[in-house]
Amino acid sequence: MTEAEERLLAEMAEQPQVVRRILQQAPPAIGRVVDRLKAAGPWSLVLCARGSSDNAAVYARYLLEIRARRIVSLAAPSTITLYGSGPALSRAAVIGISQSGRGEDVVAFLKSAHEQGAVTVAVVNAPVSPLSQYADFVLELDAGEEVSVPATKTLVAEMTMMALLAEALAGSPPSLVNGLPDAVERALQLRPQAKALAEHLARVQTCAVVGRGFGYPAALETGLKLKEMAGIHAESFSGADFFHGPVTLIGTNHPVLLVDVGGASTAPALATAEEIHRRGGTPLLLRAGEFRPNPLPYPTLQLPLRDLPEAFAPIPAVVLGQLVSYEAALLRGISPASPRGLQKITSTL
Amino acid sequence: MTEAEERLLAEMAEQPQVVRRILQQAPPAIGRVVDRLKAAGPWSLVLCARGSSDNAAVYARYLLEIRARRIVSLAAPSTITLYGSGPALSRAAVIGISQSGRGEDVVAFLKSAHEQGAVTVAVVNAPVSPLSQYADFVLELDAGEEVSVPATKTLVAEMTMMALLAEALAGSPPSLVNGLPDAVERALQLRPQAKALAEHLARVQTCAVVGRGFGYPAALETGLKLKEMAGIHAESFSGADFFHGPVTLIGTNHPVLLVDVGGASTAPALATAEEIHRRGGTPLLLRAGEFRPNPLPYPTLQLPLRDLPEAFAPIPAVVLGQLVSYEAALLRGISPASPRGLQKITSTL
Repeated sequence: MTEAEERLLAEMAEQPQVVRRILQQAPPAIGRVVDRLKAAGPWSLVLCARGSSDNAAVYARYLLEIRARRIVSLAAPSTITLYGSGPALSRAAVIGISQSGRGEDVVAFLKSAHEQGAVTVAVVNAPVSPLSQYADFVLELDAGEEVSVPATKTLVAEMTMMALLAEALAGSPPSLVNGLPDAVERALQLRPQAKALAEHLARVQTCAVVGRGFGYPAALETGLKLKEMAGIHAESFSGADFFHGPVTLIGTNHPVLLVDVGGASTAPALATAEEIHRRGGTPLLLRAGEFRPNPLPYPTLQLPLRDLPEAFAPIPAVVLGQLVSYEAALLRGISPASPRGLQKITSTL
Repeated sequence: MTEAEERLLAEMAEQPQVVRRILQQAPPAIGRVVDRLKAAGPWSLVLCARGSSDNAAVYARYLLEIRARRIVSLAAPSTITLYGSGPALSRAAVIGISQSGRGEDVVAFLKSAHEQGAVTVAVVNAPVSPLSQYADFVLELDAGEEVSVPATKTLVAEMTMMALLAEALAGSPPSLVNGLPDAVERALQLRPQAKALAEHLARVQTCAVVGRGFGYPAALETGLKLKEMAGIHAESFSGADFFHGPVTLIGTNHPVLLVDVGGASTAPALATAEEIHRRGGTPLLLRAGEFRPNPLPYPTLQLPLRDLPEAFAPIPAVVLGQLVSYEAALLRGISPASPRGLQKITSTL
């Protein structure tokens, strides 16, 4: 194993601890943000992020809309950076999510929001950063330095922080997320099972990753990791969009990985698997959630969770996706830690 | 040529006329919607759509944020349909976009918005539809029946309608869009040039389609058409996200089609082409916009437009994407009009 691969595995292994620390330390800072958001009334929330962090933003979007019932807009930073004329933000709360706090267009968007008088929040993994400079509130991830190019522990930290924020805004009891560190720990123990699933991806160039509802952000992130770590052209879809066009690509050389996080996401995942099978395709299942572990007629990686509601299951599901991507890379003879042509902090052309 | 292919070509050929009709007939109905949206104050706008129509919604999002400076949220209908608890919409304006007016989850979302007291608008190509039932205002596309599965004229009609709505909300002079029917007409004349570009896609299984700013919605729609018509696994990216991960897939068997719609979208498209070339990849260019037609060192399909600002160039750009997809399908021996396994109206599993 190369040093880079060892480091990536070590960063992945830290995830339960990172989640536990956020659950212990973040609530006071989150409480201050929530007080301010409640005082601001039923304003729109705008989330701004890029890359992996954008998948944490999509996850937060479902939580904030379903649990806290706020309207969420996922920012298009180019409205500011290319056109210099984005939405009027004086009556919005804008949350910038960036592990480095240095993504140029996220910084530019939060700066504009700050200048317009928006309530601004930075979710970052750095004690000092350009992003924090424009934030009324900083939520620090405290995940420790992440050196590997594929984001793992910082992404899981962002998801955890946003889950706590959404739940606090919704007024839910904090105990709901108590099972999270343990769930992430148990996900990490499934490496052999992840390898078995990865064998179905080792010889393909393309695949689809599909999820509905809370399964969708986990599908997005798993698709990105399959690209970054294993060089597979994995495209992620909402289950609802998959049958508008993308389904034409189904075939034995184009498997479809269905993400099921329990609850309402289970029935559409299983129905989609059946439909793909009926059409001669190859469904694969990645499951983490509060469901009965039942044997399925498709290759399946499953982590049954007790006492962790569907809304939080995307976090251990993302960890399963990391393991599958890591193992698929090794089976393909690629180093999962050294994606071709990527840098840790990406400049926007 | 099969009957289905003839019909698809005929529907594509109707596009200038469809655009012209909307420019002539829609303004009074749009004026009534705009009066109501202005009276509602600086509320959030929520756009709800699926499939191709979702690409029209992404286009509208840029227009409404950049030109009318409203915050736009692209709805996740599953918050309602799967979880029964979406965002509180009583102080929002919700626009449902669906050519048939029968997409189940778009209908369910607009129904919920209507019940919550939102201002609701339906953009549809049918005089009577389930969607219209829950709409305070109906904007009818009047594009004539579309029989082919790949949406062409109805999608262009949706984009045109949303462009007029955004411009009216921004208070722009209506003359800005006068050049649109002519631009769409001239795009359709470039079929031989589209075929020349399609030759670079005829032998690949996968490709990326990349655009920034107003180039992004045109890239999304072109990627969908390459899938639907030509069976190519084309994934679309914002240029800003492309270098976060997806760039690892670059290679001679994975060309990247850059969409340039002039204005601010040109510089990033050309810089990205250069960067891809530097990395040993194959950049292809699809250009429609107010730019000087300069010779580029990459295979290029270009439609130089005079008197059509960047904000509207995505409409003829989408038409160029249709032609490239159509020609790529023929070169691959696939019927562009009969995508495997698709229906005109898609049920959500």
